[in-house]
Amino acid sequence: AVDGNRLWDSLTAMAALGATAKGGCRRVAFTDEDRRGRDLFRSWCEVEGLRVSVDVFGNMFARRPGRSNLPPVLVGSHLDTQPTGGRFDGVYGVLAGLELVRTLNAAGIMTERPIEIVNWTNEEGAIYRSMMGSEVFTGALALEEALALVDLDGRRLGDALDAIGYRGTAGLWSYPVHCYFEAHIEQGPVLEAHGTTIGVVTDGIAFRRYAITIEGREAHAGPTPMALRRDAMVTAAALIGATHAHALEVEGARATFGYLKAHPGVPNTLAGRVEMSADLRHREDEMLDGLEERLAADLQRVCAEQGTSATLRRVVTSPRVRFHPALRRRVAEAAQALGYSREEIVSGAGHDACNIARRIPAAMIFIPCKDGISHNEAESAEPADCEAGCNVLLHAVLAAAND
Amino acid sequence: AVDGNRLWDSLTAMAALGATAKGGCRRVAFTDEDRRGRDLFRSWCEVEGLRVSVDVFGNMFARRPGRSNLPPVLVGSHLDTQPTGGRFDGVYGVLAGLELVRTLNAAGIMTERPIEIVNWTNEEGAIYRSMMGSEVFTGALALEEALALVDLDGRRLGDALDAIGYRGTAGLWSYPVHCYFEAHIEQGPVLEAHGTTIGVVTDGIAFRRYAITIEGREAHAGPTPMALRRDAMVTAAALIGATHAHALEVEGARATFGYLKAHPGVPNTLAGRVEMSADLRHREDEMLDGLEERLAADLQRVCAEQGTSATLRRVVTSPRVRFHPALRRRVAEAAQALGYSREEIVSGAGHDACNIARRIPAAMIFIPCKDGISHNEAESAEPADCEAGCNVLLHAVLAAAND
Ligand SMILES: NC(=O)NCCC(=O)O
Ligand SMILES: NC(=O)NCCC(=O)O
Repeated sequence: AVDGNRLWDSLTAMAALGATAKGGCRRVAFTDEDRRGRDLFRSWCEVEGLRVSVDVFGNMFARRPGRSNLPPVLVGSHLDTQPTGGRFDGVYGVLAGLELVRTLNAAGIMTERPIEIVNWTNEEGAIYRSMMGSEVFTGALALEEALALVDLDGRRLGDALDAIGYRGTAGLWSYPVHCYFEAHIEQGPVLEAHGTTIGVVTDGIAFRRYAITIEGREAHAGPTPMALRRDAMVTAAALIGATHAHALEVEGARATFGYLKAHPGVPNTLAGRVEMSADLRHREDEMLDGLEERLAADLQRVCAEQGTSATLRRVVTSPRVRFHPALRRRVAEAAQALGYSREEIVSGAGHDACNIARRIPAAMIFIPCKDGISHNEAESAEPADCEAGCNVLLHAVLAAAND
Repeated sequence: AVDGNRLWDSLTAMAALGATAKGGCRRVAFTDEDRRGRDLFRSWCEVEGLRVSVDVFGNMFARRPGRSNLPPVLVGSHLDTQPTGGRFDGVYGVLAGLELVRTLNAAGIMTERPIEIVNWTNEEGAIYRSMMGSEVFTGALALEEALALVDLDGRRLGDALDAIGYRGTAGLWSYPVHCYFEAHIEQGPVLEAHGTTIGVVTDGIAFRRYAITIEGREAHAGPTPMALRRDAMVTAAALIGATHAHALEVEGARATFGYLKAHPGVPNTLAGRVEMSADLRHREDEMLDGLEERLAADLQRVCAEQGTSATLRRVVTSPRVRFHPALRRRVAEAAQALGYSREEIVSGAGHDACNIARRIPAAMIFIPCKDGISHNEAESAEPADCEAGCNVLLHAVLAAAND
């Protein structure tokens, strides 16, 4: 069994890097805080005798050798956080991987296959795109394209990786991997509401993200009659209202507008341009097709009403993913053997595991989080649940590493 | 008569400072472009033998002595622009003042009273407040309070004035002023639509500006069910929609939301906080009371619907102002004598003249602008109209300066 206190202490030490006044974390990908988090993780791995390599997109791999040189079992998540993020989202999965290795080391247990702990680059979406490290790793996003993308401050990601010293030299997926496990807080209210300790994740829901630009006409807030306005902000507001109302009507739909920038952005001038994001989700890809069509139609309608024009560009496509039945069974069996309550659950968030699952067997383990709140400095999880999830991870990984 | 070409050349030279790719100007108050505009204006004044003084809030006064030392006639406007502003808004009024002085100098005409050209600090509103220079000058806003305000980047205005070298030593309204004239583009569509050259401004409409903060709860765009959200962005959108619809219904009302900032501002997190501006206008203060009540009530309602909370803070109050009947008559008579078409018109924009008119006789002269567009890089006015407005200004000022 893992050492819950040691795991908790590591979570606490990592949370100190980029700690916010409200008890959360700001360790945004590609920033100096990201670098410090990576450095700390690397030093911990080296103490455990793991060999750490960094690939050409900054993904970090810490390898514990097996008896044989068979394809390794990969376990991990991400150390980057939201701008006003919590202490668990992602971090838990990486440090649970570290804790299971520490446990094996302390007990002198050798596995057949190597085990590698991974820290994926920019899972949270320091730019429009999230889950980028695993996307580049699996080839869903071309490396050159990824390095050339810019963050919201206009910085190219390749330069940003150079700046923090984490543009590595290891190739992308340059050797076979046996399977992948990721432990994570649920980020939703289900496990807590049901009093369940372990979520056996069956699916990752489908989601798509859009960059929308609305063009109106800048004009003076005073002398410009209402009827002559082409107001990009009013257009944006109408789109948000319509999309939100529609998402409330469609069972299981989610619609979010988290980013919005108005130009020129002063109180006494109508916005001539608005740039904004839209994030749509539904368990079923077909339903998501419908939500997307509706978004496009609503955008056209509100533009026609306001005399504005717009472009809608899909920048992220994450189809529904089903996690591997055999690995899910392994997670369920581990929870059973350890005496933890468990239930099957769907992930409403995207995870690096979703990208990996499109290529090789992968599974996820959820633990409850307080009030289902995540992407929030108040994000919180119980030490006992963290320990439970890590024990399940240990058992599942051990089994797979001895396949 | 003034020299229309010389006036146009000066407008063109000033437009080069902070020129934008789209043919507009970005000479925002307190920036280095503002400093360059002020320096150029000062050098032109000195060539004309005017004594330039700068007061403790950066307002610039260029004095042409009269035969007597009676209270001077003040004429001017502002050289600062919107972030994506035009070449005429404000600039025209200052340079028309300069042109009339050049004309008097060239003709060797002495007036009884001194004439002073004024360039007011931060008319456009580099922060929430606009028309600040004249507000501080007239005592409507206390100097210490003004200097301690911060711009949208968090910089104190006192420091910003120091940085550009325009925190002067002259006192505020330290001697009596006889009257004030301001020439300006209309910034609306009326004169152009009627084919009129000169607008004799009767009123400045009432307006108020608000800083609104909506507090929701940051949460993940995926696993957070629609029903459990407290989304500050959806709340803001609903407020904009409701207020816009109401303003369309109320004859003569104007409502504008030009500034909006969402926190944390990433695509996959619900906005936990939105900061935004609202700008409400109506010719009648009583109607504006009603619009304000409605805004507050709508804000409360949309917050209740979304489970969010909000604060609404009025940061600018500009009551309706009536310009001085005798000065208006003088403007009308000048237009008549010069053979220009004219009509009475209401200003939908606030002007420094509105602040001054609350203390001493003041009047405004409007000229048409293309498509009624202002606060836009495409802002445009005809050379002939600029010359006509300047001739009217010359005649009106001459008459007042010989009172
Ligand atoms: N787990 C997590 O927060 N992922 C971010 C990607 C997304 O779902 O938007
Ligand atoms: N004239 C002008 O653009 N003034 C800015 C103040 C206002 O918002 O009306």
